[in-house]
Amino acid sequence: MRAAVYQAAGHVTVEDVPDARLHESTDAVVRVVRSCVCGSDLWSWRGVVQRQPGSRLGHEFIGIVDEVGDDVRTVAVGDLVVAPFQWSDGTCPACLDGIHTRCEHGGTFGAPGTDGGQGEAVRVPLADGTLVVVPGGADGVDDGRLASLLALTDVAGTGLHGAVLADVTEGSTVAVIGDGAVGLAAVLGARSVLGAERVILMSRHEDRAALGRAYGATDVVSVRGDEAVATVRAMTGGLGVRHVVEAVGTPESWSTAIGMARVGGTIGAVGVPHTSPQLGIFQPFVQHLTLRFGVAPVRRYLPDLVARTMAGTYDAGDVFDLTLPLADVAEGYRAMDERRSIKAMLAG
Amino acid sequence: MRAAVYQAAGHVTVEDVPDARLHESTDAVVRVVRSCVCGSDLWSWRGVVQRQPGSRLGHEFIGIVDEVGDDVRTVAVGDLVVAPFQWSDGTCPACLDGIHTRCEHGGTFGAPGTDGGQGEAVRVPLADGTLVVVPGGADGVDDGRLASLLALTDVAGTGLHGAVLADVTEGSTVAVIGDGAVGLAAVLGARSVLGAERVILMSRHEDRAALGRAYGATDVVSVRGDEAVATVRAMTGGLGVRHVVEAVGTPESWSTAIGMARVGGTIGAVGVPHTSPQLGIFQPFVQHLTLRFGVAPVRRYLPDLVARTMAGTYDAGDVFDLTLPLADVAEGYRAMDERRSIKAMLAG
Repeated sequence: MRAAVYQAAGHVTVEDVPDARLHESTDAVVRVVRSCVCGSDLWSWRGVVQRQPGSRLGHEFIGIVDEVGDDVRTVAVGDLVVAPFQWSDGTCPACLDGIHTRCEHGGTFGAPGTDGGQGEAVRVPLADGTLVVVPGGADGVDDGRLASLLALTDVAGTGLHGAVLADVTEGSTVAVIGDGAVGLAAVLGARSVLGAERVILMSRHEDRAALGRAYGATDVVSVRGDEAVATVRAMTGGLGVRHVVEAVGTPESWSTAIGMARVGGTIGAVGVPHTSPQLGIFQPFVQHLTLRFGVAPVRRYLPDLVARTMAGTYDAGDVFDLTLPLADVAEGYRAMDERRSIKAMLAG
Repeated sequence: MRAAVYQAAGHVTVEDVPDARLHESTDAVVRVVRSCVCGSDLWSWRGVVQRQPGSRLGHEFIGIVDEVGDDVRTVAVGDLVVAPFQWSDGTCPACLDGIHTRCEHGGTFGAPGTDGGQGEAVRVPLADGTLVVVPGGADGVDDGRLASLLALTDVAGTGLHGAVLADVTEGSTVAVIGDGAVGLAAVLGARSVLGAERVILMSRHEDRAALGRAYGATDVVSVRGDEAVATVRAMTGGLGVRHVVEAVGTPESWSTAIGMARVGGTIGAVGVPHTSPQLGIFQPFVQHLTLRFGVAPVRRYLPDLVARTMAGTYDAGDVFDLTLPLADVAEGYRAMDERRSIKAMLAG
């Protein structure tokens, strides 16, 4: 089969690789229908994070089940399935706590020795715990709906998780730091899943701001840093906001998040800190803040988000503004790296 | 009147100072019955934190109301009152959120220009918002009960707040980092107020460990750092604890707290970070931790803790293991600095 392979920073190719096949009786093999490039893939593309040359790429995909192991019970050949970006057993202590991204038997698609989503097929370990079946199957699911389902594999659940970590509930006022796909999904999750009343999005890019507004952002702040803090404070009677989603993960974005949080407020952090920033704890202490962190357990949210997506009440698919064939995956990386694309989808 | 005065690191004297008196119509003057030395007072005693020479000392006291301003409504001359370590109006947005230590009209006793608790009397601003009257008055309140009430002015509420921040509830398993008065009060609060089932106290001092056990610690761990982490993990099936109270505030104690927290756990931090430690956020991220910080809003807990104390169902008074007259206050600082005393009380 064909699959994307990481060669070096800035160099991704599509190669013939061994076909995906069952190894364990709990595996399934999924033929990929749609996959995409993640903002986190850019860290190795840019050479910031080391990645093993020759390893596969991509951890986001939806597809049709081609084969299942003898012990797979909840997934059948022919099902249209959504995979979260990590597999998980659904039964260990962490999974039972809803933290599937710390499953004791879990792993990430595209890690060395595994299939990546950016390819023709994927061996999915622990298929019962991992995959979520789309009710009704693939028949009649159009391109738009496929894009919406694909968004659930990572960014939709990650953005929603940021808002959940930030304790967003009905009527909340929320600030979202980051206008990438995760930040935009946080806007959508805060508004349409959790019922926030006011969502203030930090965005300097008009196309992203427009999508943020479409997703329910009530305000867009286009300045950065201390200016953004001052603007948001002015918008909230000087008090700041009770709920902040940090969807970037840099020292600068953290400083902005802490600066605009109201005394006693909560920051939900889903911006993976690839650069290991240090956080001074004096300010959180004085501000009585709650900081909640975590690599989003997307699997937790999938059944609900798949149902909402199929019912047409929730649609995160517009984060994809570029569609390419698998053969052109490198252009997807380039376009996202150069911010010509929010998120690139692979189809065919 | 006589009051303790900060001269320099390691040098505290008792001097004649102007009598405490009403400045505003919302003030009360309280004649001090009991006061004490705080662990946080030791930072300036040790020269770690700068303090203005000539400033008063002490922010913990109980006493009898001697005089009230014309606008004071809830406090009367002759009342026995408990003061939290900061005054607060009880009506601003932060106070309404229960975060009295961020009151917009608040301040700390002993700050330059104010009276300190380590003296014969104190002018209390915003008396209605600040003071809590002991029902029944001073008659029949014996020395032991006075000590128990005095403990409520800071350490009892601060320890309890740590456990509240750590989300301790009925049946919780909790680890407490720090065996000073605040850590010990966290044990007491977790067990007798919040209903924790298992409380693991880190303590290397047998006298403190014994008091911790008396306050309800079910386990005492006497090793430190990585050894403490390994011990607590072994005690909890390898998983770690869901609730950690951080009552020290150093990089080492933070590392211990993060190391023993279970995936998805919560750290409640009340150890004031005088040395401004930096916290790497990668580990909290991977561990899906919640970090909750804050200078304890002791005023929030006072009505309940005063009632429990007078009912005899809660007694934090045993944190005082040394009683001195005001004239010997410097010996209280020395004894605590040298760890000969957990907490020194001033009487008479």
